[in-house]
Amino acid sequence: MSQFSNTDIFAGEVIGTAILILFGAGVCAAVNLRYSKAAASGWIVIAFGWGFGVLAGAYTALPLSGGHINPAVTVALAIDSGDWSKVPLYIGSQMIGAVIGAVLVWVAYYAQFAANADPEFAQGTLGNFSTIPEVRNPAANLATEIVATIALVLPILAFGATKALAENGNQVLVVALLVVGIGLSLGGPTGYAINPARDLGPRVAHALLPIPNKGGSDWGYAWVPVAGPLIGAAIAAGIFKLVF
Amino acid sequence: MSQFSNTDIFAGEVIGTAILILFGAGVCAAVNLRYSKAAASGWIVIAFGWGFGVLAGAYTALPLSGGHINPAVTVALAIDSGDWSKVPLYIGSQMIGAVIGAVLVWVAYYAQFAANADPEFAQGTLGNFSTIPEVRNPAANLATEIVATIALVLPILAFGATKALAENGNQVLVVALLVVGIGLSLGGPTGYAINPARDLGPRVAHALLPIPNKGGSDWGYAWVPVAGPLIGAAIAAGIFKLVF
Amino acid sequence: MSQFSNTDIFAGEVIGTAILILFGAGVCAAVNLRYSKAAASGWIVIAFGWGFGVLAGAYTALPLSGGHINPAVTVALAIDSGDWSKVPLYIGSQMIGAVIGAVLVWVAYYAQFAANADPEFAQGTLGNFSTIPEVRNPAANLATEIVATIALVLPILAFGATKALAENGNQVLVVALLVVGIGLSLGGPTGYAINPARDLGPRVAHALLPIPNKGGSDWGYAWVPVAGPLIGAAIAAGIFKLVF
Amino acid sequence: MSQFSNTDIFAGEVIGTAILILFGAGVCAAVNLRYSKAAASGWIVIAFGWGFGVLAGAYTALPLSGGHINPAVTVALAIDSGDWSKVPLYIGSQMIGAVIGAVLVWVAYYAQFAANADPEFAQGTLGNFSTIPEVRNPAANLATEIVATIALVLPILAFGATKALAENGNQVLVVALLVVGIGLSLGGPTGYAINPARDLGPRVAHALLPIPNKGGSDWGYAWVPVAGPLIGAAIAAGIFKLVF
Repeated sequence: MSQFSNTDIFAGEVIGTAILILFGAGVCAAVNLRYSKAAASGWIVIAFGWGFGVLAGAYTALPLSGGHINPAVTVALAIDSGDWSKVPLYIGSQMIGAVIGAVLVWVAYYAQFAANADPEFAQGTLGNFSTIPEVRNPAANLATEIVATIALVLPILAFGATKALAENGNQVLVVALLVVGIGLSLGGPTGYAINPARDLGPRVAHALLPIPNKGGSDWGYAWVPVAGPLIGAAIAAGIFKLVF
Repeated sequence: MSQFSNTDIFAGEVIGTAILILFGAGVCAAVNLRYSKAAASGWIVIAFGWGFGVLAGAYTALPLSGGHINPAVTVALAIDSGDWSKVPLYIGSQMIGAVIGAVLVWVAYYAQFAANADPEFAQGTLGNFSTIPEVRNPAANLATEIVATIALVLPILAFGATKALAENGNQVLVVALLVVGIGLSLGGPTGYAINPARDLGPRVAHALLPIPNKGGSDWGYAWVPVAGPLIGAAIAAGIFKLVF
Repeated sequence: MSQFSNTDIFAGEVIGTAILILFGAGVCAAVNLRYSKAAASGWIVIAFGWGFGVLAGAYTALPLSGGHINPAVTVALAIDSGDWSKVPLYIGSQMIGAVIGAVLVWVAYYAQFAANADPEFAQGTLGNFSTIPEVRNPAANLATEIVATIALVLPILAFGATKALAENGNQVLVVALLVVGIGLSLGGPTGYAINPARDLGPRVAHALLPIPNKGGSDWGYAWVPVAGPLIGAAIAAGIFKLVF
Repeated sequence: MSQFSNTDIFAGEVIGTAILILFGAGVCAAVNLRYSKAAASGWIVIAFGWGFGVLAGAYTALPLSGGHINPAVTVALAIDSGDWSKVPLYIGSQMIGAVIGAVLVWVAYYAQFAANADPEFAQGTLGNFSTIPEVRNPAANLATEIVATIALVLPILAFGATKALAENGNQVLVVALLVVGIGLSLGGPTGYAINPARDLGPRVAHALLPIPNKGGSDWGYAWVPVAGPLIGAAIAAGIFKLVF
């Protein structure tokens, strides 16, 4: 990680994570909100929206910071390299970017969120920002996030071992399609945070933004999509060090 | 931009933008019109149709003009390079191409538009040519177009900073998937012009074509999908110059 | 075209076109037939099924014959190069392959077609083999096929002018996504033959196969999806020679 | 195959096949189970979920074992090369990985499977693990699996003949999209095993896991999705040796 300057890391991770969340929370708003042309357009839209958010955010950040845009990726790379010096800078920048991205979603969907003034719409607002489990069961939800994050981080680490992929500029494209796949296959139970900043940043934005009838921010669940991805990242990094 | 001759720029941008609009307005017709095999096939079809229109149009124009096919991209590159000499040629060619593309959609869907002779179909014709906001609120609609265009142009500028991506022939592919993502995630409120020629050219074609019961061309809204993308492009270019 | 031996051209085009039709007519059967897990799964499935059929067929044929698998592509390349010597071999091989591919679809969906013994299913069988216009209007249908084939062939010819794309192994991938886009955007009126062999070969197979209650093979329409793509290919080749 | 150590082959094929099944059986659970955010999201989700499971699993295994993750691929490569020495190791590892992957799906969807305690949910559990034909007709089902596996293995073998594709790191990406296409086009009749380990491993897991009201494991059908893919692989390898 030492190849990037602190300023570039900060700029890259803030901008990259903001773009990720703009696309990701954006596609949730597109599908969930009334008065959206994409209303009720289904899970395939959600999964590709998030995946191409990774494409946009990580390729943008790539030349500045390596394009982690996810504390789980940063932690896994630190475990693998043994170098933790830049981890706080990366994660702090990712959190700032995630909050900014969520605010931009609110700007882009301002007229849609305004319709929320009708109390009938009060439900479901948080779901455009943070994850909500389909069945609330903290142990099972945590297990889901751990498995899904292993399925993200272990392939990302392994991709680096295929030289052609790492060097030909397609690595982020493949990661983006990987994220589409995780959404399709493993997003059903919890809405797949697989990224602590992806969940916590928008949750902070939800708590702060003046959205009418927005409901609570469900802080009781907030630890699951932070702890699960970090545990999953550590397990993936351990498997990687053992096998590759 | 000076690497291309004026003739090539003209040909490339006319043909490339015509292809973009043929695919993009075409997919709107495919989904919105009755008597189409793709009738009511949903937002995922719209978003991939536009994105692969970028793939087709920009790769075709790439060796002739660099494949801008969007005044917002042209303006952002001019801000970045400081060279505005070719901007009028690019934008004029893009506008001509956009009108041609919209006429070709009318040709391809001639039998479908003819069914419009039944006044019951008069509504919705414009939506196959230009964007219509889901909630009409000029300030909010403008903000949506600005945010969505930043999400288009900033990544496009940044992709150029990843050498492997810029050189291996995949750059347009990645931009096409980026456009799919913008459609999925940020197209809900306004139908995502993110390209002044994409909206204004087909609107001109709609005004001129002899479609029965076609309704008005909604000129009162026409400034939003022109101004929004240009403002967004300027902001994206400013961020890019500051950070990269 | 002279770089390939006659035997390789024959093998490549037969196998490649058979694979194209196996995927393409296969996805029509998957979506249209009862007792299929993909029954009624929509236009997005049709368009990606055909596009990835191009991916499979053209990449397979690429090292043997260049992977035309479409008489419209063969004719356009002959117009561009001026060398017509191999055209009959290419087109004959493509036609043989298309018939074989359609027979393989019948094998793969044997139990589904057998359900056709119930006369209630007699309608719609042809649609799993050849194209049927949504509104029967030969002039308009021909125009649609011409426009859609220009949208296929002009980009294909232009892609060759971008050296990185032509050399890095991604050319067929980009063509496959282009075909997905044509299906999404321009397939609504006629079901997009854009390939004479794609339509005529399976129509021959439909006429020959012992499918119960299969209905007529609609030979009165058969000239449209042959003539339209050939005219479109000639126009595209003309534009290409003029501009590039 | 001799370029990889036995340890690496074991690790690569176990991990790669586990990832494949985690995504593949996972997407079946996502779409089929109640209380999943992707419930009833359709065939496009199934096909892309499996395809991107190949992307994830095969790219992860690529540097360790070449990324077969499918006994049909292993057998085809052995027929082509004449070297069968590593075949038992590959297939054994793939089977172990497939069982592990199915267990991970059960972990990720634990709360969803627990809802099965209500006997009303007892049906359909097996379908999240192994394939079930839409029309039960062993001869026709076998034919479907043979055709679909030829459509998988012959292109995979042929891709290796296009040097640029084999060397630029995109080969697995193209195979993944090929698998998406097979699912879309040829998955309708049997649910497309096209991989003996993909079917048999999860069936073993289904038989062992303590899922309430899980129903039988349908061992009477289990030979079809093993025999069909192996026969198809042999035919594909034979065609490849003859033609390429």
